[in-house]
Amino acid sequence: MATSLSLSQAISARTSSSHHQSSLSHHLPSSLSLSSLSLLKSSSFSLKTSQRVVAPCATIRASSAVDSLDKSASTEVTLIEKSVNTIRFLAIDAVEKANSGHPGLPMGCAPMGHVLYDEVMRYNPKNPYWFNRDRFVLSAGHGCMLQYALLHLAGYDSVTEEDLKNFRQWESRTPGHPENFETPGVEVTTGPLGQGIANAVGLALAEKHLAARFNKPGAEIVDHYTYAIVGDGCQMEGVSQEACSLAGHWGLGKLIAFYDDNHISIDGNTDIAFTEDVDKRFEALGWHVIWVKNGNTGYDEIRAAIREAKAVTDKPTLIKVTTTIGYGSPNKANSYSVHGSALGAKEVEATRSNLGWPHEPFHVSEDVKKHWSRHTPEGAALEAEWNAKFAEYERKYKDEAAELKSIITGELPSGWENALPTYTTESPADATRNLSQQCLNALAKVLPGFLGGSADLASSNMTLLKMFGNFQKDTPEERNLRFGVREHAMGSICNGIAHHSPGFIPYCATFFVFTDYMRASIRMAALSQAGVIFVMTHDSIGLGEDGPTHQPIEHLASFRAMPNVLMLRPADGTETAGAYKVAALKRKTPAILALSRQKLPQLAGTSVEGVEKGGYVISDNSKANKPDVILMGTGSELEIAAKAADELRKEGKAVRVVSFVSWELFDAQPDSYKESVLPSDVTARVSIEAGSTFGWLKYVGSKGKAIGIDRFGASAPAGKIYKEFGITKEAVVEAAKSLS
Amino acid sequence: MATSLSLSQAISARTSSSHHQSSLSHHLPSSLSLSSLSLLKSSSFSLKTSQRVVAPCATIRASSAVDSLDKSASTEVTLIEKSVNTIRFLAIDAVEKANSGHPGLPMGCAPMGHVLYDEVMRYNPKNPYWFNRDRFVLSAGHGCMLQYALLHLAGYDSVTEEDLKNFRQWESRTPGHPENFETPGVEVTTGPLGQGIANAVGLALAEKHLAARFNKPGAEIVDHYTYAIVGDGCQMEGVSQEACSLAGHWGLGKLIAFYDDNHISIDGNTDIAFTEDVDKRFEALGWHVIWVKNGNTGYDEIRAAIREAKAVTDKPTLIKVTTTIGYGSPNKANSYSVHGSALGAKEVEATRSNLGWPHEPFHVSEDVKKHWSRHTPEGAALEAEWNAKFAEYERKYKDEAAELKSIITGELPSGWENALPTYTTESPADATRNLSQQCLNALAKVLPGFLGGSADLASSNMTLLKMFGNFQKDTPEERNLRFGVREHAMGSICNGIAHHSPGFIPYCATFFVFTDYMRASIRMAALSQAGVIFVMTHDSIGLGEDGPTHQPIEHLASFRAMPNVLMLRPADGTETAGAYKVAALKRKTPAILALSRQKLPQLAGTSVEGVEKGGYVISDNSKANKPDVILMGTGSELEIAAKAADELRKEGKAVRVVSFVSWELFDAQPDSYKESVLPSDVTARVSIEAGSTFGWLKYVGSKGKAIGIDRFGASAPAGKIYKEFGITKEAVVEAAKSLS
Repeated sequence: MATSLSLSQAISARTSSSHHQSSLSHHLPSSLSLSSLSLLKSSSFSLKTSQRVVAPCATIRASSAVDSLDKSASTEVTLIEKSVNTIRFLAIDAVEKANSGHPGLPMGCAPMGHVLYDEVMRYNPKNPYWFNRDRFVLSAGHGCMLQYALLHLAGYDSVTEEDLKNFRQWESRTPGHPENFETPGVEVTTGPLGQGIANAVGLALAEKHLAARFNKPGAEIVDHYTYAIVGDGCQMEGVSQEACSLAGHWGLGKLIAFYDDNHISIDGNTDIAFTEDVDKRFEALGWHVIWVKNGNTGYDEIRAAIREAKAVTDKPTLIKVTTTIGYGSPNKANSYSVHGSALGAKEVEATRSNLGWPHEPFHVSEDVKKHWSRHTPEGAALEAEWNAKFAEYERKYKDEAAELKSIITGELPSGWENALPTYTTESPADATRNLSQQCLNALAKVLPGFLGGSADLASSNMTLLKMFGNFQKDTPEERNLRFGVREHAMGSICNGIAHHSPGFIPYCATFFVFTDYMRASIRMAALSQAGVIFVMTHDSIGLGEDGPTHQPIEHLASFRAMPNVLMLRPADGTETAGAYKVAALKRKTPAILALSRQKLPQLAGTSVEGVEKGGYVISDNSKANKPDVILMGTGSELEIAAKAADELRKEGKAVRVVSFVSWELFDAQPDSYKESVLPSDVTARVSIEAGSTFGWLKYVGSKGKAIGIDRFGASAPAGKIYKEFGITKEAVVEAAKSLS
Repeated sequence: MATSLSLSQAISARTSSSHHQSSLSHHLPSSLSLSSLSLLKSSSFSLKTSQRVVAPCATIRASSAVDSLDKSASTEVTLIEKSVNTIRFLAIDAVEKANSGHPGLPMGCAPMGHVLYDEVMRYNPKNPYWFNRDRFVLSAGHGCMLQYALLHLAGYDSVTEEDLKNFRQWESRTPGHPENFETPGVEVTTGPLGQGIANAVGLALAEKHLAARFNKPGAEIVDHYTYAIVGDGCQMEGVSQEACSLAGHWGLGKLIAFYDDNHISIDGNTDIAFTEDVDKRFEALGWHVIWVKNGNTGYDEIRAAIREAKAVTDKPTLIKVTTTIGYGSPNKANSYSVHGSALGAKEVEATRSNLGWPHEPFHVSEDVKKHWSRHTPEGAALEAEWNAKFAEYERKYKDEAAELKSIITGELPSGWENALPTYTTESPADATRNLSQQCLNALAKVLPGFLGGSADLASSNMTLLKMFGNFQKDTPEERNLRFGVREHAMGSICNGIAHHSPGFIPYCATFFVFTDYMRASIRMAALSQAGVIFVMTHDSIGLGEDGPTHQPIEHLASFRAMPNVLMLRPADGTETAGAYKVAALKRKTPAILALSRQKLPQLAGTSVEGVEKGGYVISDNSKANKPDVILMGTGSELEIAAKAADELRKEGKAVRVVSFVSWELFDAQPDSYKESVLPSDVTARVSIEAGSTFGWLKYVGSKGKAIGIDRFGASAPAGKIYKEFGITKEAVVEAAKSLS
């Protein structure tokens, strides 16, 4: 492809740095060669390419100038280069208009973006949610104008010219980073680095799982790829290492990640902080690695790499594509200055001149429009073809089709909630982590898209699905996910699974304190509306001897403060079942379940309906909504509140006990309900929770008392710590007496 | 060393798995060989070994039984094996007594622990804080009984026999995971996996930095190693990948990490989730990698590996030591069942029998005691020798010695706070991130231990120290740390630096929202009392177009809920300087500074003294402590509160404006002060903060109003978002009027 590289482009492209030891040919398995690869086509790939004529791009451009293209040469540029420059300038122009954004990545990645969206990927622009579409994730989310430009050219209604002109403006569909909830066609929300590639691992896992579960001989009803573009920043983040280690372990052969190897990050050349051998690391992780040396104009190299990647079906592939950030900008290319701000009018002009682009901002020429316009009928045809295939499948495999349909549509099988276990006060005392396992196993039986696992704590979190085996490279139809000690990637992978199809309900688990390791992924679940269930056990000092490194204190408060998260802390079996019911229903809000390590009795008065209201009365011996005192608790401390109430009642007090299993659900109730639970004129209120008191003032009021823990925990048997920290019945009784 | 392996031990040791491709000899550089290595001794190593006679260990034991050792053979065990078994049984017995803990790692790692503490490391047990000691970090912190047993044998007063018997009990010095603040001799707090190795990178960085800054020809006053033991769990965590990538980049040659390669994690064999090629990954990260195949009894292999590691001075070394978890336990070794719970009386007996250990629990024989007792005089001699060396150094290099002394003791140079910049209301409006940079540069001039950097956002966080270059492999004397996009490791590395010497004041930076990526390290700073300064810019929707993925909402609340963290949100230059003063003084409490991207005016009435009180009146036109209304704000919203006050005053209201720069500091003031700022009978109170309102009720009271943001942000110009979200002067004025 050197023939398509103009002289000025050849000069502005950065020279390969010394630490790139390998090249495309170097990485080819000995049994493969580039020429033989062109004959290797997966069924999906051949379907795609047979419908498309790839524009030739071997035109040689003459340019007498070194620093800028001879404008007359622009008439010779091929359609594909025109299309690629269209992408570059849509990005340049949108960033310029907003005077905010990241032009550098789109300018460098436009060629790979073009090959993906115009030649390789299967999608239906008029139905961005078509189930069997290929998924694309821009893990380097700051380069979102690349994706917006591609969606626009490909015919997605979500990104019109008007939308491009409203880049980064209030209520636009083109926000500053890709957001799935704003822009159909965007699969997941990215920006925080490394999240996207971990999401992509989840998307690819979902595909592999569904394909193994539902495909039949001659009926490959699930068959699509997951593509991602990751930058140097993503590569440095630990979450991407965790996720990519799992992708290699799981052998996700249909995951193809492009590494935009441009050697520039915000602080300058990546050499100042990032000199590891990325290729070798990915080989160590079990990936196939390919190097495309010329990502700026090497279309054939990019195509060959994708063909090769598809031919390797037992490993994910990393295609390292060496590009020039800000390619085409004469004075800013290959520098951090083009990463994250507008080029400025003068440099935009210089870039227009350099790339031979005389057009007004946001220009898309008719021939480029025409070239891309075929994606609308082609996409419709792809979906129609698949629909016919599915109809045939449905006839042959009724039960499987029903299950798959539930996953595709998100419609839960009717009566699913009846599968949840029920408890009475006669039920034996048990830890809510164990009760949680009963719920997980009950739900997995009736919800086709229910799957998940733990970060190497399955036997502590109690998260194994007993009727299923482990999802592994060779058993991808199974539903127990084994994440290893990789909390952050676990969360992000589950977000990816949830975003694959509406009927997926992934859960994942670790100790509650280790939400600190995965907080970024939990926030992304909340923001991107991924209904993941976070099963968090060992939820207080009640875990005992492991000590303060393992004992959550501020975690309940910290999640109560986070938008769009349901923080649930059930007190017994009934409340645990209620929490799972709520969590399974809330498909656009992640739920965190805080569960005990220690045994808890089944309490009188708890109910699923109560859980649904977040806060409710479990017992009351008062009259006319006027108790002497209201005691409140959550989780393992509700038992303490109930026992304190018993004692106070013996002494003649009228005591109400309220379970506050979820603040968010309670706060969403009508005022009348809230008043019925917490009458304003009852100011004698005591809360007890083995965690920070931060925020409890809202319920106990200025005249009440919050019993909790506002220091770090300690290493000792649980009962001893409860006693020493004053999380006791006696403390509640004393506080209640002092107030009422 | 196969000669020292008994038959039963050889059988219970697990066979090498197929993915171990390399061996010790394989990894030797071609110019080195094992025999030549024995002659290679660093100065420190020769000092150590010249004083010690390593007990021979080539005794061949005969054993007729396969499953258990012939008891008569126990009389033949060499002293070193006796010592190693002492470590194993101290761990077994302590866990058994507590009926809680992790015996598996200590049983497997006892040999490497023994070689380190008895033969290799330089320390003074009677002064655990001797500056030039070698540092040891048990990154796999659950195996803490290994460290407690070693500290006990080595003569540390912090771990007596009584302490061992109180393992995991209330107020003991032997908590469930290693805690530096409980147990002198423990350098950092570990348990949450991956933290320890990242801390170790910080410790090794600190040594390399100080050595480069202070050593003189013939006066190597800083010269020690950092050793760590990491487990499979640590290896899976992203934070360890981030930290180890940096260690390789920085060429931390005196960092030597032992990888306890035992193939078992909590969920069983690591094969279910962890099949990457760890050796190859570390080579890709620029580490020297050595494999000790027989970590159970291969003392000479371990010794040779350490010699080799010391000979490689330009790279950190990973010594992969293949061990058997729970080595010696006939029925539980090499299984997850020995990882995290007591063996049980029966298996303890079987293990005693198998390892030929007829002794009562907690037994340390006289010959073993005698063998270890030399560390007390030797350690004292090492320190005395160093003290003499330092006295000589002080005579020759007065200024350098004074600087180093400040770092060693933590005594800050007198008058350092006068270096902080001062501002007046005439000072130009500026972003607090820029004002922060002025403070950072001012402090670096006067505080010898001040150093830090950003996670690839130096030019956005404004954290460069202008008078210093970059800390790099070949310029380790410099003080700008370039962490790359590795927030989590950045925090943990800074924790390690802080724990190296009391006078180190490390700072680190990213966008405030990305505290989510490093929350575990911030919590560890808080718990382990590391006075790191976390410089967090772009602290609200005020960052504008980057959108909700980049806009913190719940973060202020989430850190206000965390114990032992100072959350500071200064409003202008004066408050920023005040925040740095407080942060620099609080050496056992980390501080988080939330700083604005946008320009803010220097406000009338702000003061450093006010910041020190956390909340204080910046303006008031009321009389007799009875304003009509109190307006409160923090950071960028204090300006809005001040402007609203101006408007209200024009309308005749008596208005007080309170800056709430740090809740923690305010809450620590006496009640009388609090009452003087927030008089109880003034209930008309309005707070404004561009973040979650969670928790503000505490200050605004039940009759006040908290203006904030309880949803995710949005992508648009900052001014527009403020307006749309109602974070405006008008909203404050309206709220104030409705209340007063």
